[in-house]
Amino acid sequence: MPVLKNVELTKKANIYFDGKVTSRSFVDEKGIKKSLGIMMPGEYTFGTNEAEHMEIIAGKVEVLVACGDSNWETYGPGEYFEVPANCSFDIKVIEITDYCCTYIG
Amino acid sequence: MPVLKNVELTKKANIYFDGKVTSRSFVDEKGIKKSLGIMMPGEYTFGTNEAEHMEIIAGKVEVLVACGDSNWETYGPGEYFEVPANCSFDIKVIEITDYCCTYIG
Repeated sequence: MPVLKNVELTKKANIYFDGKVTSRSFVDEKGIKKSLGIMMPGEYTFGTNEAEHMEIIAGKVEVLVACGDSNWETYGPGEYFEVPANCSFDIKVIEITDYCCTYIG
Repeated sequence: MPVLKNVELTKKANIYFDGKVTSRSFVDEKGIKKSLGIMMPGEYTFGTNEAEHMEIIAGKVEVLVACGDSNWETYGPGEYFEVPANCSFDIKVIEITDYCCTYIG
């Protein structure tokens, strides 16, 4: 199991949608802002301030990125999707999902 | 907001009770094993292999430690309880709870 070394981990959780989505923010050893989170089954919409790279560690989601020419796409373990800054995405969580979000600008 | 520096953070989440309890394991800069977790409202029983110090960061729980002379006690933000090794505790999560568990041997 991968371990992320030399991380600065924020103690308090981020809690969204009454706890159906929660995450822990950290800064990796290269200074890149990331979060590790859990999404319970359901449908959610998230806006982005910065562009995001969303890696699915475990679970299954369907995603529609609001900006650009995009369609609903399905992602599972080891797959990822990216969302531009100042955009939003709809996500249907089919199975409880463990994810890693990297803020890429 | 406290930030924990020089942490080794395990990427994959720990998922219990169909995701109603989830946590992230890490080792702090002193080499002490800890986890940060979220408990959704509900009632759970956890066994301990090692003794645990459970700090409530946010939320509200009622706890009964199975070993020793203990009663149901209520804990909120900034409070903690401890559970001996090879014991168990029942926990009623009244409000979604953000916690930090330290394994104290």
